[in-house]
Amino acid sequence: MIESFQHVCITCRDMEKSIQFYEQLGLMVTTPMLELDEEGIARAFQLPKGHLKVVHLAPSEATSGMFIDLVQWIDPPSAGESYPALDHVGINRLAFRVSDIDGTVALLQEQGIAFLSEAPQSFGGIRTIVTTDPDGIFIQLLEWL
Amino acid sequence: MIESFQHVCITCRDMEKSIQFYEQLGLMVTTPMLELDEEGIARAFQLPKGHLKVVHLAPSEATSGMFIDLVQWIDPPSAGESYPALDHVGINRLAFRVSDIDGTVALLQEQGIAFLSEAPQSFGGIRTIVTTDPDGIFIQLLEWL
Repeated sequence: MIESFQHVCITCRDMEKSIQFYEQLGLMVTTPMLELDEEGIARAFQLPKGHLKVVHLAPSEATSGMFIDLVQWIDPPSAGESYPALDHVGINRLAFRVSDIDGTVALLQEQGIAFLSEAPQSFGGIRTIVTTDPDGIFIQLLEWL
Repeated sequence: MIESFQHVCITCRDMEKSIQFYEQLGLMVTTPMLELDEEGIARAFQLPKGHLKVVHLAPSEATSGMFIDLVQWIDPPSAGESYPALDHVGINRLAFRVSDIDGTVALLQEQGIAFLSEAPQSFGGIRTIVTTDPDGIFIQLLEWL
């Protein structure tokens, strides 16, 4: 049966732009970029072809083995728009723990990263704020109170 | 800056159905179900209200601290359809490591769970298969070769 979380897949339109964004957040690319063209991928994913580019990203201090599988599809190409709102059905938000949310937000705002609220919001024992990646995917930062 | 993955949010239409599915996969509910109605959630998530039900789920043997934040929105209600295909832009797939993928798939098929391919597919050093949760969200199982 299931042993552990292994990865979460983020499908992007432009891998370079997405890597730049996640590196700004403090994640690191942990594998060389691979371009795969595999019939096994097509069969497993029920797509006509299995041609994609992929890198793995993880927080530099993380020890869990969990990573982001950042994929840009080539054939078929990455398609569609990410969920428009946080009440949308689906995997609609990925959350990271930060040690100093005010300092992190200030630093990211200086780099031009925008957030959904003016400042972190407090509820349920956390302070939290949400941003969006280059494809509009919701990324949450949170600090325990 | 970012220290670690904290959670991935899955927004569902019917919490009981989703909990049943993830428990079939071998995950456990790790917190009591909470119903929250918080202005801070509404502000952080840029929604008119912040009224939702939430539980946390994790593999029973996992030690990473990572969890699924399983949310059913009440006001505004959970809305829309999950991504229809695995080349769709967005967080479109959550992957779990399993120790015996053939045995796991056989057991889940006996329980009526369907998969996108007839059998696990091999590529890039893994054997993998994809299923969908009650809202059509893509869940991947994989075993290292």
